[in-house]
Amino acid sequence: MPNISQRGVSMPASPIRKLVPLANKAKSKGVKVYHLNIGQPDLPTPEVAMEALKHIDRKVLEYSPSEGILSFRKKLVNYYATFNIHVDVEDIIITTGGSEAVLFSFMACLDPGDEIIVPEPAYANYMAFAISCGAVIKTIPSHIEDGFALPSIEKFEALITPRTKAILICNPNNPTGYLYTQKEMDQIRDIVKKYDLFLFSDEVYREFCYTDDPYISSFHLKGVENNVVLVDSVSKRYSECGIRIGAIITKNSQVRENVMKWCQARLSPPLIGQIIAEASLDTPKSYMTGVYNEYIQRRDFLIAGLNRIPGCYSPIPMGAFYTVAKLPVDDADKFCAWCLSEFEYEGQTVMMAPASGFYVTPGIGRNQVRIAYVLNKEDLKKALVVLEKALEAYPGRVL
Amino acid sequence: MPNISQRGVSMPASPIRKLVPLANKAKSKGVKVYHLNIGQPDLPTPEVAMEALKHIDRKVLEYSPSEGILSFRKKLVNYYATFNIHVDVEDIIITTGGSEAVLFSFMACLDPGDEIIVPEPAYANYMAFAISCGAVIKTIPSHIEDGFALPSIEKFEALITPRTKAILICNPNNPTGYLYTQKEMDQIRDIVKKYDLFLFSDEVYREFCYTDDPYISSFHLKGVENNVVLVDSVSKRYSECGIRIGAIITKNSQVRENVMKWCQARLSPPLIGQIIAEASLDTPKSYMTGVYNEYIQRRDFLIAGLNRIPGCYSPIPMGAFYTVAKLPVDDADKFCAWCLSEFEYEGQTVMMAPASGFYVTPGIGRNQVRIAYVLNKEDLKKALVVLEKALEAYPGRVL
Repeated sequence: MPNISQRGVSMPASPIRKLVPLANKAKSKGVKVYHLNIGQPDLPTPEVAMEALKHIDRKVLEYSPSEGILSFRKKLVNYYATFNIHVDVEDIIITTGGSEAVLFSFMACLDPGDEIIVPEPAYANYMAFAISCGAVIKTIPSHIEDGFALPSIEKFEALITPRTKAILICNPNNPTGYLYTQKEMDQIRDIVKKYDLFLFSDEVYREFCYTDDPYISSFHLKGVENNVVLVDSVSKRYSECGIRIGAIITKNSQVRENVMKWCQARLSPPLIGQIIAEASLDTPKSYMTGVYNEYIQRRDFLIAGLNRIPGCYSPIPMGAFYTVAKLPVDDADKFCAWCLSEFEYEGQTVMMAPASGFYVTPGIGRNQVRIAYVLNKEDLKKALVVLEKALEAYPGRVL
Repeated sequence: MPNISQRGVSMPASPIRKLVPLANKAKSKGVKVYHLNIGQPDLPTPEVAMEALKHIDRKVLEYSPSEGILSFRKKLVNYYATFNIHVDVEDIIITTGGSEAVLFSFMACLDPGDEIIVPEPAYANYMAFAISCGAVIKTIPSHIEDGFALPSIEKFEALITPRTKAILICNPNNPTGYLYTQKEMDQIRDIVKKYDLFLFSDEVYREFCYTDDPYISSFHLKGVENNVVLVDSVSKRYSECGIRIGAIITKNSQVRENVMKWCQARLSPPLIGQIIAEASLDTPKSYMTGVYNEYIQRRDFLIAGLNRIPGCYSPIPMGAFYTVAKLPVDDADKFCAWCLSEFEYEGQTVMMAPASGFYVTPGIGRNQVRIAYVLNKEDLKKALVVLEKALEAYPGRVL
């Protein structure tokens, strides 16, 4: 039997997936599991999207153009303009979800051995896509004490080598919910400019910023227009993760030409997903406002609840729908597994994502978990009670 | 401005895409272009699939499991059994089209520098996916004179090095339409076994075999069960290329576990595509028979027509819906571009795929083109007239 690739061996398995069999076992025993571990919103997909789906009237479900459907891309130009992101239709390439946008951006820009600097904790799948193209992720820890703010720019500079090719940010951040300030974005711009790096900017949570300030996109940064490669997705903003539609947006024509080689190799992004995503751009403001207010309420409720539990701490995230919280436990991996396999409270338990999967530096964040507030408040309330009871009962409790 | 990757530079642009601007220009001048260059069937998607699409009744278009929807995978087990391909549901992983199936199979099995042996001409995008993971494609020319039969097994053995990790076949073949015989498949099995290689087997055209013999899948080969990685797609068999649903099927659990790491990294294959593909498995036999008969008629008509044109030659392909034909021209790349940019006959012209894009060995197949018979007979008839007139007028004609 031939060996699998070394690349495959070095690919980390999803930090959450390891817990899935335990969750399934709990469910099979009749235990209700509150999923605080996933980024799948429970909110309905906009009606205008569902209507478009029902009215698809075609004889052949054919390939779309490799770069995406033109009318969809044109409409996206207007969408971005509402965020003061000014792009031409040529700057937009449609991808199969934000995941493919990350993979193709890396493929087009990074060679084996090239280094990307990323603040950690960071979205775990960046690591997977970096490994796919042989690139090396170098991380700089951010800290729960200051709400996971951008590490000092000196920390970035200390990591720069001749192989440094890019900085990667996720803003608002998954997993921390942190939203970069103007000052932080300016610091990122300065270092990108100084060392002429790519700036991969994952902005899929742009709709979910809970400050009154306007959103700051990497596209707003002056003087690095050809360095910025924006990764986007419609998944979260319209609660339509399953349609797999994302985008790469860049003013850098060389990057676009190169990305297109991968787009052509995979022929076409999903046709029906694009039809739905295009229709979603007409989602009424009332829907977006409703979703926004709902997340703010959930956030406030969750964070207050967490901080009331003895030994727990969560900063107040200003964006996205996640927080990274500190728990009074010896090891969050063990605790999360224990919640699913050895604990229940009134027939219920919780599933959380241990933060270890979001750190590259070994050993840090061991008492942290990522909690998504994609459940309704009633369920969040119950989940918080279960979490508190679990912490009281957990043998590895550390106060 | 930072440099794009060397990988990107070395990625071949799609051989067909180079001609697209020329085709668009011809169309903008009012010239009718017959597309003999693409693998997008003009046949309708089955009604049962379109009905399933119209009746999707969900509140949230959520992620599907990373390995695909269970009910769909279960139904596929029955589908494969009708081809005497006996698999368990665990052996099937759903992918975003056959393209992702190839990419993830390569990623999971091949490291940079590993070599894959492929008979050429071969589907151009294999090269792109090999480059993506740093693997090296080594080709063995097959020849139009014997209908692109499998090259002798000695030719394979001559290419084997310590880095040889896999053999890749496409059966029935894109671009040649060649269908491997039992004897040829046995030879492939023997060499795969002898050197303990992976056998990547792209079988997306399995429904389109125009002999009376039963289809021979790599899954039928004894003694190499853990070596075979089957790549599949629903695109061609149900004329639903745009839904982007494929599969990796293998008995090798290590490969599956490894492939799953990439599946989890990209979270989910398209949800709606899976719903459509699952429904498509109930396509009535009458549809499949109708499509089959239509392709046989088109093939017979096209091949006879081609062979009547002075200096043209095409073997009779026994599968898929392509043929690679020899034309009396100095350079098929030039001829195909010339047809679009400098020729028209009664306001019409033809677009074909130069075979050069399907060969890795430089200089061979220069007078060959790939022609897809995905157009109706009426259009094929007109296209053949245009092709004959073009060949008469072409300055680089070589008889």
